[in-house]
Amino acid sequence: MLDLQAVLDARDRVAETARHTPLDYTHTFSAMTGADVHLKLETFQRTGAFKIRGATNRIATLSDAEREAGVVTASAGNHAQGVALAADRIGVDALVVMPADAPLSKVEATRHYGAAVELHGEDYDAAAERAHEIEREQGRYYLHAFDDEMVMAGQGTIGLEILEDLPGVETVVVPIGGGGLIAGIATAIKGKSPETRVIGVQAEGAASAAASLAAGEIVERDAVDTIADGIATRRVGEQPFAVIRERVDEVVTVDDDAIAVALTRLLERNKTLVEGAGAVPLAALLEGEFAYADGETIVPVCSGGNVDMNMLTTIVVRGLAATGRYLRIRTILEDRPGTLEEFVRILADHRANIYAIQHDRTSRDVAMDDAEVELDIETRGPDHVERLIDALEAAGYPVEVLT
Amino acid sequence: MLDLQAVLDARDRVAETARHTPLDYTHTFSAMTGADVHLKLETFQRTGAFKIRGATNRIATLSDAEREAGVVTASAGNHAQGVALAADRIGVDALVVMPADAPLSKVEATRHYGAAVELHGEDYDAAAERAHEIEREQGRYYLHAFDDEMVMAGQGTIGLEILEDLPGVETVVVPIGGGGLIAGIATAIKGKSPETRVIGVQAEGAASAAASLAAGEIVERDAVDTIADGIATRRVGEQPFAVIRERVDEVVTVDDDAIAVALTRLLERNKTLVEGAGAVPLAALLEGEFAYADGETIVPVCSGGNVDMNMLTTIVVRGLAATGRYLRIRTILEDRPGTLEEFVRILADHRANIYAIQHDRTSRDVAMDDAEVELDIETRGPDHVERLIDALEAAGYPVEVLT
Repeated sequence: MLDLQAVLDARDRVAETARHTPLDYTHTFSAMTGADVHLKLETFQRTGAFKIRGATNRIATLSDAEREAGVVTASAGNHAQGVALAADRIGVDALVVMPADAPLSKVEATRHYGAAVELHGEDYDAAAERAHEIEREQGRYYLHAFDDEMVMAGQGTIGLEILEDLPGVETVVVPIGGGGLIAGIATAIKGKSPETRVIGVQAEGAASAAASLAAGEIVERDAVDTIADGIATRRVGEQPFAVIRERVDEVVTVDDDAIAVALTRLLERNKTLVEGAGAVPLAALLEGEFAYADGETIVPVCSGGNVDMNMLTTIVVRGLAATGRYLRIRTILEDRPGTLEEFVRILADHRANIYAIQHDRTSRDVAMDDAEVELDIETRGPDHVERLIDALEAAGYPVEVLT
Repeated sequence: MLDLQAVLDARDRVAETARHTPLDYTHTFSAMTGADVHLKLETFQRTGAFKIRGATNRIATLSDAEREAGVVTASAGNHAQGVALAADRIGVDALVVMPADAPLSKVEATRHYGAAVELHGEDYDAAAERAHEIEREQGRYYLHAFDDEMVMAGQGTIGLEILEDLPGVETVVVPIGGGGLIAGIATAIKGKSPETRVIGVQAEGAASAAASLAAGEIVERDAVDTIADGIATRRVGEQPFAVIRERVDEVVTVDDDAIAVALTRLLERNKTLVEGAGAVPLAALLEGEFAYADGETIVPVCSGGNVDMNMLTTIVVRGLAATGRYLRIRTILEDRPGTLEEFVRILADHRANIYAIQHDRTSRDVAMDDAEVELDIETRGPDHVERLIDALEAAGYPVEVLT
């Protein structure tokens, strides 16, 4: 099993390509929670995520023959870019198989960092199959994203940095997808500071590790469904799971709304972009998914910041809706002159700002004489939403809340 | 006129409430421009913007009687929060008049930092009038947002920090609204390093300083129109204008599309949220609005990060559209079964991802038998957009580009 020495050995190697990222005290989230919260901002890591640490340590410890043969991997996300840059810096040839519909920004970034990219298949599994084919055909080293001791050891250097910057840390909170990140961090933390808690967080729609711990063996999910695409894995890795059982104190889950709220708050209050997977530790803290003492020193690991910009706008709207600051409703208006005006006046009286109206007289869901209206509204919090809906209903308008 | 000594004197006072913000080298924008670009990240300043510096220096240098009487100001934005926190830290009573429809987030933040807030009037001018009334009635000190020497001196401490962190800086690029920020920074820079260029940037829809420099006297605009609300002022201040004429090398303008692109790129590549006003210096650099040498050391001042989250989603979509990554089109389909399917197949063949379709058979703009369709599409850059539109037109569909 992975041990502290492997993480310590990884440190100098990882420092060749990766930054020691900031650990920033956050007044906002400390005030919100009563804890003493410091964010480990791996979102500012090179390539925008922690993956470069593990990839660097893996490539740097290959044999000469393996380096000569080059590496191959499959990824639709951060691992692709981490492997590309790590391989380029060390001077090893890298080939990354990405699903055919991978976001262009990720494909371009991977090429930009120096890897060859082959687009293949409809999803990650198909891409991984092709990468294994290439492994056999070309004799390249298959660089697994998490189920590899050297990869886990590389990610563990985050734990060393946290202990160096904040020696008294009481709780470290880490996302879990395949489990490589938390396995490395937990090994570093428990090895050097056994009394520090390590808490893992999964997205509810991809909670393989949580289910596996409960079952006592790895449980593979049939499907995953979460906005946190960086941890949307169907199963936790074998080697990480062994470490998690031993060294992680607790694994909790958060739903997509909580993730959207945490991501939106990080953006709004800390001016920092963190991807969904990187926001799950803060989401768990804000939702009270684990117990902590007043003033407890807590470090949520914000593991990456690579969010597709189109996806981002969707997540922010969801985050606003979940905190009562964005409301989408559907109602029915009698189809006579002036009804829309009357309706809109109620909104104005409540100082609710309208973003968009869709007015449809042809909907099959309403009587011939009526019109269906959908509105996107800026609201001022849950109380405001409640007052507004009460006022509309009191005036005789049926209100269906859509988000 | 403001002199270097006033800025130097401000430094210790400002340090009591404001952070020395990071100056970060950016590989992304250096590679894009060929310059050596370092971002002054005032977006990470307390209250999310530079205004706290000037407010602190102003309040700290009031007479005992003035402090005792308290301060009053008007603001819909960053100045409100800067005054609130500065006054609270120094122990002076502060009252901020904000327009009645100011975003709730800004009202709450201002109260949170310790100021009393009065909501009054439809716009900034009405709020300012009310604040002057209060000045007269209550004898409070009216704390102007930019037309004040002590305020300008406080903002100038940003210039001192830049010179300290990057002594060889060749060009500093600064947003201009009322002009207080650039007046302070230019005074610091030209006083200590006369050969360093200072370039001012305005939003095209609020370019009072540029017009005033051309006219040789202050030109007031009838109206302003820009997404950069932090610099949406109708006229540059008297005192800042005098300093700008003397010490600023060049003033250029950028349009809203350029601002949206710069903001989006900062978010996507640097994981950092900067507001529209704070993105204009980078926008001017990326658009080539001023000349610079290869490898020139350039510091765009990212002056703040307070963007309304709803506004943010709109700006990001605009930034994506301006770089060919988001396309909204309108077309006409003959109203027979299968036409939409055929149309959508062309999109699929070009790997263009559809976000939304609105299909309207009742539009008055089309013949009885036809249907008007609006589509929101994810695209992969300007070339992709061009190929896609060519293919649709070749197949006989009229295409009107909406964004």
